[in-house]
Amino acid sequence: MRVGIIGATGYGGAELLRLLNQHPHVQDIILYSSSKEGMNIQESYPHLSEIYNKELQSINIDSVKEEVDTVFLATPPGVSSEWAGKIAEAGCQVIDLSGDLRLEDPSVYEAWYKREAAPSSLIQKAVYGLPEWNREWIKSAKIISNPGCYPTATLLGLAPLVKSDLIEFDSIIVDAKSGTSGAGRSPSAITHYSEMNENFKIYQINQHKHVPEIEQLLHQWNKKVSTITFQPHLVPMVRGIMATIYVKARKKTTEQELRELYREAYRHERFVRVRPDGQYPATKEVYGSNYCDIGLTYDERTGRITIVSVIDNVVKGASGQAIQNFNIMNGFEEGTGLKLVPMYP
Amino acid sequence: MRVGIIGATGYGGAELLRLLNQHPHVQDIILYSSSKEGMNIQESYPHLSEIYNKELQSINIDSVKEEVDTVFLATPPGVSSEWAGKIAEAGCQVIDLSGDLRLEDPSVYEAWYKREAAPSSLIQKAVYGLPEWNREWIKSAKIISNPGCYPTATLLGLAPLVKSDLIEFDSIIVDAKSGTSGAGRSPSAITHYSEMNENFKIYQINQHKHVPEIEQLLHQWNKKVSTITFQPHLVPMVRGIMATIYVKARKKTTEQELRELYREAYRHERFVRVRPDGQYPATKEVYGSNYCDIGLTYDERTGRITIVSVIDNVVKGASGQAIQNFNIMNGFEEGTGLKLVPMYP
Amino acid sequence: MRVGIIGATGYGGAELLRLLNQHPHVQDIILYSSSKEGMNIQESYPHLSEIYNKELQSINIDSVKEEVDTVFLATPPGVSSEWAGKIAEAGCQVIDLSGDLRLEDPSVYEAWYKREAAPSSLIQKAVYGLPEWNREWIKSAKIISNPGCYPTATLLGLAPLVKSDLIEFDSIIVDAKSGTSGAGRSPSAITHYSEMNENFKIYQINQHKHVPEIEQLLHQWNKKVSTITFQPHLVPMVRGIMATIYVKARKKTTEQELRELYREAYRHERFVRVRPDGQYPATKEVYGSNYCDIGLTYDERTGRITIVSVIDNVVKGASGQAIQNFNIMNGFEEGTGLKLVPMYP
Amino acid sequence: MRVGIIGATGYGGAELLRLLNQHPHVQDIILYSSSKEGMNIQESYPHLSEIYNKELQSINIDSVKEEVDTVFLATPPGVSSEWAGKIAEAGCQVIDLSGDLRLEDPSVYEAWYKREAAPSSLIQKAVYGLPEWNREWIKSAKIISNPGCYPTATLLGLAPLVKSDLIEFDSIIVDAKSGTSGAGRSPSAITHYSEMNENFKIYQINQHKHVPEIEQLLHQWNKKVSTITFQPHLVPMVRGIMATIYVKARKKTTEQELRELYREAYRHERFVRVRPDGQYPATKEVYGSNYCDIGLTYDERTGRITIVSVIDNVVKGASGQAIQNFNIMNGFEEGTGLKLVPMYP
Repeated sequence: MRVGIIGATGYGGAELLRLLNQHPHVQDIILYSSSKEGMNIQESYPHLSEIYNKELQSINIDSVKEEVDTVFLATPPGVSSEWAGKIAEAGCQVIDLSGDLRLEDPSVYEAWYKREAAPSSLIQKAVYGLPEWNREWIKSAKIISNPGCYPTATLLGLAPLVKSDLIEFDSIIVDAKSGTSGAGRSPSAITHYSEMNENFKIYQINQHKHVPEIEQLLHQWNKKVSTITFQPHLVPMVRGIMATIYVKARKKTTEQELRELYREAYRHERFVRVRPDGQYPATKEVYGSNYCDIGLTYDERTGRITIVSVIDNVVKGASGQAIQNFNIMNGFEEGTGLKLVPMYP
Repeated sequence: MRVGIIGATGYGGAELLRLLNQHPHVQDIILYSSSKEGMNIQESYPHLSEIYNKELQSINIDSVKEEVDTVFLATPPGVSSEWAGKIAEAGCQVIDLSGDLRLEDPSVYEAWYKREAAPSSLIQKAVYGLPEWNREWIKSAKIISNPGCYPTATLLGLAPLVKSDLIEFDSIIVDAKSGTSGAGRSPSAITHYSEMNENFKIYQINQHKHVPEIEQLLHQWNKKVSTITFQPHLVPMVRGIMATIYVKARKKTTEQELRELYREAYRHERFVRVRPDGQYPATKEVYGSNYCDIGLTYDERTGRITIVSVIDNVVKGASGQAIQNFNIMNGFEEGTGLKLVPMYP
Repeated sequence: MRVGIIGATGYGGAELLRLLNQHPHVQDIILYSSSKEGMNIQESYPHLSEIYNKELQSINIDSVKEEVDTVFLATPPGVSSEWAGKIAEAGCQVIDLSGDLRLEDPSVYEAWYKREAAPSSLIQKAVYGLPEWNREWIKSAKIISNPGCYPTATLLGLAPLVKSDLIEFDSIIVDAKSGTSGAGRSPSAITHYSEMNENFKIYQINQHKHVPEIEQLLHQWNKKVSTITFQPHLVPMVRGIMATIYVKARKKTTEQELRELYREAYRHERFVRVRPDGQYPATKEVYGSNYCDIGLTYDERTGRITIVSVIDNVVKGASGQAIQNFNIMNGFEEGTGLKLVPMYP
Repeated sequence: MRVGIIGATGYGGAELLRLLNQHPHVQDIILYSSSKEGMNIQESYPHLSEIYNKELQSINIDSVKEEVDTVFLATPPGVSSEWAGKIAEAGCQVIDLSGDLRLEDPSVYEAWYKREAAPSSLIQKAVYGLPEWNREWIKSAKIISNPGCYPTATLLGLAPLVKSDLIEFDSIIVDAKSGTSGAGRSPSAITHYSEMNENFKIYQINQHKHVPEIEQLLHQWNKKVSTITFQPHLVPMVRGIMATIYVKARKKTTEQELRELYREAYRHERFVRVRPDGQYPATKEVYGSNYCDIGLTYDERTGRITIVSVIDNVVKGASGQAIQNFNIMNGFEEGTGLKLVPMYP
């Protein structure tokens, strides 16, 4: 396969380069840019010295069509709206890591993203690339809308419960914590080192763009779910997301029953690890890998279930999951190029 | 005043030394220890070089009686059970920073702490030292049970709501995050640098000792509250606690109404800062100071209130609050020695 | 005293506000700005809420003259060149935290700062405010040029040796490490959290602006010193500088002899702590305080002396030292407002 | 190949498991322990869940002989002294990551390690496994003594210069900085999170065990080198070493000449990257990879050369280099299993 990346100078792009370097079916990688044409990727990322000696190319549909089979878009909002359709029409597979094509209803997109939505016709062609639950559709997709980082951790953590009848469906609260890499590479006051280290922040209260994305999937899975409460926080670390999820049980249950439900749901999933009794995952236990680790418990005193779901936001929450989708779309073994043992410590 | 500290080699003790150094009414400080007699405090804490050149003394009630007016106990579980009563009987004020005297019901203590409770007679003499709500009792107390760090942030964040009729009283969820200093000074696997940095952990799920302490106060304030859900997390930073608190509104409300409720409740409190509309505190904004900063919001979509309460766990969550209690007990202006501007960045 | 600050929205300014809040002889503080007039300082620094409710004023010499006795300039390069002279002529004391007035030779300034130097007449009026060695001149100064952070740690660490005849004067190497706050408050790629955390960087190799400042003082102290090697590094932490200083002994010496030399040199200095045999300071041991802690050793194998000097770059390396100078200029006890115990942990 | 690891519960062992999981010629891995027999490795390292489901076996030479071809010893001091010889006699390759077999002179070992040295006969059989300079000997070695982390960064940074005639050979100073993982997995006061975060420390001044190891190699390379000055520091991060190396040039040189020397020396080395003019590596640029990145400069003012050498101490400084040696010993392509792009950010 020949692969193109648009947006290689961002963190999602850099991580694609790290992972694709190990992918046995990727022969060539071409880097495109609409703003930094001519720059060598090593100038932007010295850690790639002597590994990728490549210049960024301008995006030209005729060249793209000639040069690559699949295009990953690791781009800021608005770019995919413009390019994903054209690239797909040119016959290339598209895997879009941005949020542009995730929300089915353009008015919802516009309300939360505060910008114009992509054309409906384009959105409708995109398949939401959460492999554990949408694998069949991904197989035949031409355009993948790769899930957001928070939605990945949250949805994998909630799916078995939401698809069951064990919970009160208006009781879902997600307290999410992320490393700073999710905020991207552009320097800002909020992620300035002196203001972020030895600090813990809450941000975008009741307003994070990933809320409607999570709600959309939950609602697809179970019509009884409409809204959730979701509050994101910034942790003084670079990588890692933990979603601590609180749900009220509809009736008395046990930790054993819940664990069995999750074990059954993810029995054949290589990238979801349901932890045993009394063990809860820390974010570092999936660092640099494509795993989503899940721990859970039930509190008899309160009748409340707590689920702990962790991922590396740059891997399973972005580029790793994108490659997982790439593998599925192309009939490769799903873990190809992703057999990464978490880096610890 | 002449002041004694038992447990000066722990973090609570070190912080008392930092703060009391600036207290105009403290003439002398004597350090007691039941295990490290004879050691100079500078050996344990080189940062105190040339500031405190003091040896730890063995604890002897007759000497204590002679030497000091007030004793701060910054000790591990079990020490206060043994000493607080004796010291009080000797005529000294006691301010206990441990959890030994906080829970009124010994069986609850024993269930959560997994150890024998202090004598009931001793517990009954202790006043729970949360100045903003218990000031009158503190004034005449002989023994103060200084609140835990998580309870301080949580209770100050919840009090106005719990004392109102605005919420569903079985809906309280507290997702709490703390820096590592709350875990104390003894090295352990969980706080080993290589395992804690670039990591985010949940711990003591459904089992943290501060749960019954929080519930006890909430129940005193409003009999309708019985249990809460409380999950603590460890953040890769040293100081700071954020409690993100979720409560279901009983009926439609507004952010303005809520803010007014909080502003009113804390109008005369110098150490509680209710933030304006749209502003939520980060932990660093109270770093090194005795403030508790509170932000809040109401989500019309879900009918849920989110309260964000932050403190420096070593100051307002421990030693600073202890000195605040000391001031109240002795009729000093409440902020004496505590006029610390947060250290930023 | 009535005090003015120009540049209160930077870190040096914020630290002045923290420290001056405790200064018994400061009755009023006025904040001036040449770019953010009208903004309330709380908007820029929420940690100052309810402590400083002050608007930034535009700088007008007539008002300055009326309103304040002393002006602290905590400003980027170029501002002091313009304002320090005018303010001094208006009769106010000037304490300049920028580098504009530190180098006596304008051509050296221009070579290292790559910008136009301040007028020579202005530079000549400024006294270099390193109290431990320039105290007498500071007493009668009208304009203080407050030392840079690296020079403070380095010069206090080197002075006794350089003023002795024990070393080879062309052998001085300073390997310096700083937290990120020294880089200021403007977000940049180098201090972007995701690129700085879990990372250690060297920067401005052979080119740091503090090199000529250090050399100037060393040369004043001993004509035999002309150049040094100085390499600065960025540590993933916010506050703190360690200078590890390597010097070749001219002849065999002992650790005891060296320690005695340092003890003697700093015997009467309240803010310099020479550590005992075998103890070397860590940056956190001076965190938030005005101390400079020094450890030293001699290696018989190599004939080399290693000196370890640590400061909090925002306090002794900037605002704390500025207040120390303020005290000296005004005849206040030198430690007034600076009796800060280091914050640990 | 079938591979055994003694000491899998330490960080070196965990990293071997991460890397060997990707090694195409390793069919089986057996974990041995002399203290934790029967424990499943997942209990010690939850991040290995569902990847390595293996129990630790007791070490029995007959079984080792049967079960494996190569044994990696990732053990504390003293273990290899006891086992390396026996395992080699049983016919297995030995790669020892400890310091037991690195120093040729037992009296030097005993002076620096303060413990009994391994038998001379054993030490003499061990080849120092620095592939870039000892490759030929490694090819036929039966026992590899894998270099220490600081020596790897320092020696690769110094070799071209020391083998040249460009420098003054008694002028070498190494100011080294390491993440905390080098201190191992046992909790201690020095690496307790609350004492290490927001802190920078110097340690083992003039006494680090890696000093004689570095000197031994430098002296082998050039008899004119006898002693060096080496001071190690702890950085508040987990992984990464930077050695900042200072050397006096014997006569005037240029950065171009020096870079050419290094480029030439490492022209065929896949794991050493000499950076271009004006670029200096940061530790994160080799994070998780087997690279050693080198930057250098010459200062005309002082006649001093500064070399900056960075590695990931757990990879190139330990387990990655061990696998590199394993590849060489067995005739595999040297980069097999080590094609790791640095993880950034």
